[in-house]
Amino acid sequence: MTRSLKTILFGPAIANRDARTEKVGVLRGVAAVGLDGLGSVAYGPEAMLTVLAGTGLAGLNVQIGIAIAIVLLLMALYFSYRQTIAAYPTNGGAYVVASQNLGPRAGTLAAAALMIDYLLNVAVGISSGVGALISAVPSLEPHTLSICLIILVGLTLANLRGTRESSLLLSIPTYLFIGSLGLMLATAVTKAWLAGGQPEAIDPPPALAPVTHAVGIWLVLRAFASGCTAMTGVEAVSNGVNAFKEPKVQTARRTLTVIVTTLAIFLLALAVSTRAFDVMAMDQTQPGYQSVLSQLTAAVFGRDWFYYVTMSSVLAVLCLSANTSFVGFPLLCETVARDGFLPKEFAVAGRRLVYSAGILFLTAGAGLLLIVFNGITDRLIPLFAVGAFLSFTLSQFGMAAHWLRELRTSRGTDTAEGALERKRTYTRLFINGFGGVATGAALAIIIIGKFVEGAWIVVIAVPLTLMVLWACKRFNVEVDETLMQGCKSPIDVHDRTPPVVIVPINRWDRLTRKAIEYALRLSPDVTALHITRLEGPGVEEAIGRLKQNWKKYVEAPSRENGIRPPHLKIVRSEYRNLVTPVLDAVKAIDDRDTNRTVLVVMPALVEVNWWGYLMHTHRERRLRAKLLQYGGPRVSVASVPWQLKPQTPAEGLEAEDA
Amino acid sequence: MTRSLKTILFGPAIANRDARTEKVGVLRGVAAVGLDGLGSVAYGPEAMLTVLAGTGLAGLNVQIGIAIAIVLLLMALYFSYRQTIAAYPTNGGAYVVASQNLGPRAGTLAAAALMIDYLLNVAVGISSGVGALISAVPSLEPHTLSICLIILVGLTLANLRGTRESSLLLSIPTYLFIGSLGLMLATAVTKAWLAGGQPEAIDPPPALAPVTHAVGIWLVLRAFASGCTAMTGVEAVSNGVNAFKEPKVQTARRTLTVIVTTLAIFLLALAVSTRAFDVMAMDQTQPGYQSVLSQLTAAVFGRDWFYYVTMSSVLAVLCLSANTSFVGFPLLCETVARDGFLPKEFAVAGRRLVYSAGILFLTAGAGLLLIVFNGITDRLIPLFAVGAFLSFTLSQFGMAAHWLRELRTSRGTDTAEGALERKRTYTRLFINGFGGVATGAALAIIIIGKFVEGAWIVVIAVPLTLMVLWACKRFNVEVDETLMQGCKSPIDVHDRTPPVVIVPINRWDRLTRKAIEYALRLSPDVTALHITRLEGPGVEEAIGRLKQNWKKYVEAPSRENGIRPPHLKIVRSEYRNLVTPVLDAVKAIDDRDTNRTVLVVMPALVEVNWWGYLMHTHRERRLRAKLLQYGGPRVSVASVPWQLKPQTPAEGLEAEDA
Repeated sequence: MTRSLKTILFGPAIANRDARTEKVGVLRGVAAVGLDGLGSVAYGPEAMLTVLAGTGLAGLNVQIGIAIAIVLLLMALYFSYRQTIAAYPTNGGAYVVASQNLGPRAGTLAAAALMIDYLLNVAVGISSGVGALISAVPSLEPHTLSICLIILVGLTLANLRGTRESSLLLSIPTYLFIGSLGLMLATAVTKAWLAGGQPEAIDPPPALAPVTHAVGIWLVLRAFASGCTAMTGVEAVSNGVNAFKEPKVQTARRTLTVIVTTLAIFLLALAVSTRAFDVMAMDQTQPGYQSVLSQLTAAVFGRDWFYYVTMSSVLAVLCLSANTSFVGFPLLCETVARDGFLPKEFAVAGRRLVYSAGILFLTAGAGLLLIVFNGITDRLIPLFAVGAFLSFTLSQFGMAAHWLRELRTSRGTDTAEGALERKRTYTRLFINGFGGVATGAALAIIIIGKFVEGAWIVVIAVPLTLMVLWACKRFNVEVDETLMQGCKSPIDVHDRTPPVVIVPINRWDRLTRKAIEYALRLSPDVTALHITRLEGPGVEEAIGRLKQNWKKYVEAPSRENGIRPPHLKIVRSEYRNLVTPVLDAVKAIDDRDTNRTVLVVMPALVEVNWWGYLMHTHRERRLRAKLLQYGGPRVSVASVPWQLKPQTPAEGLEAEDA
Repeated sequence: MTRSLKTILFGPAIANRDARTEKVGVLRGVAAVGLDGLGSVAYGPEAMLTVLAGTGLAGLNVQIGIAIAIVLLLMALYFSYRQTIAAYPTNGGAYVVASQNLGPRAGTLAAAALMIDYLLNVAVGISSGVGALISAVPSLEPHTLSICLIILVGLTLANLRGTRESSLLLSIPTYLFIGSLGLMLATAVTKAWLAGGQPEAIDPPPALAPVTHAVGIWLVLRAFASGCTAMTGVEAVSNGVNAFKEPKVQTARRTLTVIVTTLAIFLLALAVSTRAFDVMAMDQTQPGYQSVLSQLTAAVFGRDWFYYVTMSSVLAVLCLSANTSFVGFPLLCETVARDGFLPKEFAVAGRRLVYSAGILFLTAGAGLLLIVFNGITDRLIPLFAVGAFLSFTLSQFGMAAHWLRELRTSRGTDTAEGALERKRTYTRLFINGFGGVATGAALAIIIIGKFVEGAWIVVIAVPLTLMVLWACKRFNVEVDETLMQGCKSPIDVHDRTPPVVIVPINRWDRLTRKAIEYALRLSPDVTALHITRLEGPGVEEAIGRLKQNWKKYVEAPSRENGIRPPHLKIVRSEYRNLVTPVLDAVKAIDDRDTNRTVLVVMPALVEVNWWGYLMHTHRERRLRAKLLQYGGPRVSVASVPWQLKPQTPAEGLEAEDA
């Protein structure tokens, strides 16, 4: 049952050799790694407009300027990442780039920023996808959070199954998204142009909210800070250049060009169109909420089939964009765990070749974020921008350091070629340095502009994460040193006396019988320990029955066969406790003979099914854990199983993780 | 760390003998067991008015009639429960009454209804308490669900700690609640009377919503069904008559009288006051929500300090009313588990004498309800009423069956006294029978009137719960039969050959060394098994190093001491898997000698701290589980611990549950 349930949910296990990777060209590459960046168009501009809500037409005018600033910053990032792709043609993630060029401190800082970024990408992707959904189907509004959590669980199950990421499959929603959004924006801009800037809306957006405040520099900075989330995801290409067809650097660069160009055009067209159609962001917490894209599509085409196609593609792309974190986060954790900065469990590939620990951690974190922020995108945006831009900045400065070092090592090559190459490297240094400064400045604006709205959470979370990473590192180093210390000496084979065996028993049944028989194979010195509760009716009676059975079924046959019969000891426990009496018994042996080892043999009822497992109390497991913890170095614990339903390792076991 | 964290959160362990129970009189009794019933006044009438919202003044008029009907039903319940108290002076819970008088089927039905009732009591208590809070502090409205969940977690921790229920402490909020609400209602009724039914509101409630529909019989029935939730909790007295001072039956009855009278007066006064001040229920999902009690208090006294005292007492009483489920639910589960209808874990008292499994289950269930229904009381009400009235009805019919049986057994006693007693019993039969019919009729109204709004969920959940309870029973009976079968025969001591020992090892370190030394104490036939991964750089190198160490530190000293040296076997695993190679090794031994037992000795790294535990991969634990499951009856598994930080059982262990 367990296995079949697992197989239904997660599919059969995958062997190492099956871990093929599909190589993609530009077209499929845009879908496979561009989805996340392109999807940002659905929440970035909306986040910017939310800040400007309540400023009326003035806000709609100024947002065009802000959009241009964002596109310029995007261009700086574009040229920077082109260089990262060439310099790190296998894996140019911020963690690797920062670790190699700026040292482990900057590397772990990048790792912390990236982890938080991935977490927030899941939360923001899902919540804005659900925003699109409730725009199309307003009656779902009260269930915002529930729908978010359902999608999260769905993504988790799909990823625990292991997504054999088919870029072909991803292409459908991605190109539907690009196509429908492109068509909508083109129509919007054309209509606006033909109507001299004041086109007629088919399904007009709600009237602008009354003007409550003017546009000031502070508001513009905050709008810029929110709008910067439109850039998240563009780093994805440089993270996985390996996935591209040869010549991979060129293919990857071309893919990046397509993604960034599309994104830039979309951002500008969106800014112009929202102005033309008087579309302003609405409050997602309020009934009747319509996302900016929903309002605009309805205004341009009306609410007919095309509207629903567009909204569906937005929902699909945003969910898939959340999905990219489910691919990236576990891989990042695995790399970081291999370097010793995370628990080793994060580096254990499960039965489906996925890193389950990372996936579950991501789900828990994103779920918590969604619950705390009630599934409202706008509340998550201030947190999101910080993580993303921190990793952008570190990655750019990492690249700058990379070029600096290259300049330093190439010094002294005085050929014409060398000089040309040095000149090129200077340009590269300038581009990445400029990218770093630009994203760094944006980061500063984001932190200041969004501090009280939530950026402070990330400002606290990053150093906390760093502390955890370094604590893990110290811990792992220490454990390793302890285990290797002095192991280079021959084993001790002088004292080979069998251990004293203690068997904790509950009543006389087949379980007990098997454990006693087994104990007698291991040592001639066996004691059974029965622990009674103080209270309750029938305690005395039960003890009497046990003693009688012991005499008849254990002592008598032992004597008949000339074996010293095992001893039955009855102990009354003050507390509802099994551990203390067993530990006391161990201590008594220790006091008697300080060199004797002790083996506690425990009858263990084995259940095959998860529900069978839930049916039993797990005293045996708890007792075992406590004995190992407190019993000292001379106590070992053995479990003698009693299988309720005998099982043979079936097919499904073949690749169970263990 | 684990222990100290546990101790901080949950407090030191409590011994059995410390489980004193405090006996209460009427005054404290009202607080200890009446809180739940009295707290219902904060959501019952509101639930009724919510149904009537949109009917304007007509609705406010008709609700007085509905309140009278509810009070009449309450009176019927009152007389019924007076009898239950006398007949079951120890524990007159619906499960016990129904089981003993109507058989196990009705008993488990009552148990299912009660469990659902307890779950919903938590959810409704918390959500309506938070409703009071956001009425007083409207800016908290967007965080409704988060606040609900925080309170839930707080209650869970407090109860895992074990609430040494101090009735004195409970008295403060209870009497503050009774006092402030009583004063407010008295003032409201007096003002209304003095003003001839149209008093002036100090802080007027929002204008009535425009009339959208008329009052019809269907609406009245639905309002009655919702309003019936005002009665929940009155059964609490009969559940724990043992807790009262002698003469306990009289004390309990007097307490019940005080509770029911107060509740009835409050319900009627509330109905009159809401009519006089034109207070109607508002939508909790909307910003600006004000609970009925908040509107009324503000209208009568204005929003000054008295308003905040009243709202605080409402919040406190509702949270504590949710807390009564945390006391009742685990105890119910324990009783049901002892009868075999639930997993045994529910009957294991933890270190603080609380049934942790029950508490955690309650938290999970109530948390799920709060999340699914977004912390909105009104959505939970339809579910709540069904469970409560189903258990009322079963308890009443159980009592009726009790009196019927008494009549049957007393037949033939022809003395004057006997005749008098029979007459009395007939009266009792009539009262409980009437109570059963009345609550049964109310149940039917609730199910029909609230079916589409959520009652259907309970109508499905009850039979599902019943199926689970009976599946548990069947399972427990079956396991018990299997274990006892044929155990009445002497143990087999003929074959005492030591087992073949297999030691799975990873690399040569102190852990491995200790495990090998230990294995040699248990058997002369030891094989170490090293499983390598297929891929990865440095695999061959690692194998070479291991082989070298093995020769030097294991084989050489063994030969020197004249022992057959343990064998080192290197196995390559296709998958990332340890289980299959070990199982294969076991099978090979089985094939060679079908009578040999096998012991797998596993080096186990023991961590003391929870974070240390998280740091390691748990391959050893997983391997152990799989071996016990699939290894067949002849395989046992022993763990040889390596304590990273040696620990002695400290004070805190004394009463760990195990």
